[in-house]
Amino acid sequence: MEPVSHIVVDWGTSSFRLWALDRAGQVLAERRSTQGLAASATDGFEVVLETHIAALGIGEDVPVMMCGMVGSRSGWIEAAYLAAPVPLAGLAAQTTLVPSTRRPIHVLPGIAQNDPHHFDVMRGEETQLLALTTREGACLACLPGTHSKWVRLEDGTIEGFASFMTGELFQLIREASVLAPALSGAAPVEPASPAFAEGVAEALAAPESIGNALFALRASWLLAATPATSALARLSGLLIGLELAGARQRFGNLDGVSLIASAPAAPLYRQAFAVAGLADIRAFDAESCVREGLHAAALATFQLEGAVS
Amino acid sequence: MEPVSHIVVDWGTSSFRLWALDRAGQVLAERRSTQGLAASATDGFEVVLETHIAALGIGEDVPVMMCGMVGSRSGWIEAAYLAAPVPLAGLAAQTTLVPSTRRPIHVLPGIAQNDPHHFDVMRGEETQLLALTTREGACLACLPGTHSKWVRLEDGTIEGFASFMTGELFQLIREASVLAPALSGAAPVEPASPAFAEGVAEALAAPESIGNALFALRASWLLAATPATSALARLSGLLIGLELAGARQRFGNLDGVSLIASAPAAPLYRQAFAVAGLADIRAFDAESCVREGLHAAALATFQLEGAVS
Repeated sequence: MEPVSHIVVDWGTSSFRLWALDRAGQVLAERRSTQGLAASATDGFEVVLETHIAALGIGEDVPVMMCGMVGSRSGWIEAAYLAAPVPLAGLAAQTTLVPSTRRPIHVLPGIAQNDPHHFDVMRGEETQLLALTTREGACLACLPGTHSKWVRLEDGTIEGFASFMTGELFQLIREASVLAPALSGAAPVEPASPAFAEGVAEALAAPESIGNALFALRASWLLAATPATSALARLSGLLIGLELAGARQRFGNLDGVSLIASAPAAPLYRQAFAVAGLADIRAFDAESCVREGLHAAALATFQLEGAVS
Repeated sequence: MEPVSHIVVDWGTSSFRLWALDRAGQVLAERRSTQGLAASATDGFEVVLETHIAALGIGEDVPVMMCGMVGSRSGWIEAAYLAAPVPLAGLAAQTTLVPSTRRPIHVLPGIAQNDPHHFDVMRGEETQLLALTTREGACLACLPGTHSKWVRLEDGTIEGFASFMTGELFQLIREASVLAPALSGAAPVEPASPAFAEGVAEALAAPESIGNALFALRASWLLAATPATSALARLSGLLIGLELAGARQRFGNLDGVSLIASAPAAPLYRQAFAVAGLADIRAFDAESCVREGLHAAALATFQLEGAVS
């Protein structure tokens, strides 16, 4: 087995994922936890990181490349936002070094869109997009999540993007709204559920009526005892359908979109795309993409000898 | 001063309003509190009600007419839903008597819409609409709130209606979402605020992009330090504009709508209607309407002698 060459970390609001890689980017070991920003701020970011590294028995000289909300104002250290349009190839040259740590630890920059009509920010998704930079020409990428991103790429440059609060609205409505009793005890949303497809189709047909469609979930529970599992699938479909309608309004034809997602979002979005009649979807695994992007940045930043890109 | 003839109560999820009326419907005394359903269920509904009545020194034989969520499954007693279409004139004949109380206490029914494509329910708004029943012909009414109602009336009959989760989404997003820090410390929304009008216009122009418009509030706080008061006004405008877009999708032309609202919603909706270019708005005070509706139901139910409608 190759020795560990470098460590890469995707550190978000609610999750921590670490991989120990060899020079070729092969995974030698990994660690996952729910130590997102809030938990880590309490325990100390370096303590959290070094505890995971120590558990793998990795030495003190191995450098770390990180991305995600760990580089936000409420994270470990605030890394710069680069203003779009941004050539992805330039990301690795603009990392922020965390000061006074026992090993070199770098954080990749986020991307800001300083258009007063379309202010927007991302942290982490830009690193996933590095996996798409070998493609020439134009491409539209969809990265589902708490704040889903739709990104217009041209020849390896992020030209513009839009975030949608899809995942966050889903959690808020599910847990804290008047719909909570109607959704209580629901099984996870099945992509093949008819209620999911109906929700997507309803939101695409009348996205402006989303506030009414949401209340109807409560009314159908009161009047027709609609099962929670079906109501939750419909809610998920409504919100993803709304996102597709919004992306269409902003970016036009969505055919040929690149979906960068992992389970459970990937199959749901693929099904939503099918309901919307979108063709030629290209699917990429989000976790592989972020690891590849972090690896590419690590190679460029740490000038690893003999590395194979 | 006339003696107290009857008591009317509008008892909702988060508020309690009681009026002691004479036979002509004039207000002799009133009580208000934030003892909504949850608080009242703990203390006991009859205890809450009788404590307010005792504070006014009103005798045990004076009857009570109530409406609102007090008649829901999580209220004092579940009152029936009448299925739309419903002639408003028939409401008072179908009250539910609360059993085993020291005085006669009735609860007005709610209205259900059993259309599988448009399940919907209301409790309380139907009583406000009684104030509009003297009008002949068709009329569209807007009743803003936690779950705003848009109601199509034809010659005093509720033909159909749609609820929108506008007020609830506003509170959820304000208090519990990633936007909370951007909205913290905001002053109440001013109807004349340019940010409010911009939000209404933006949602009307691109209602399908609401999920993106919401996230942009966070991004503009991060990137341009947009003040919380302006961000909150924009949020309010976006959600009310979305409701108008949804009402238009459902009911067509909204000109001539009857707005049944009290402060602070009334001036905000009037301004939103102006931004949407709606003409001939008729405004009614929601509190007066619910009191008049309760009074009319009390007259019919309690067969009060010498009453003047």
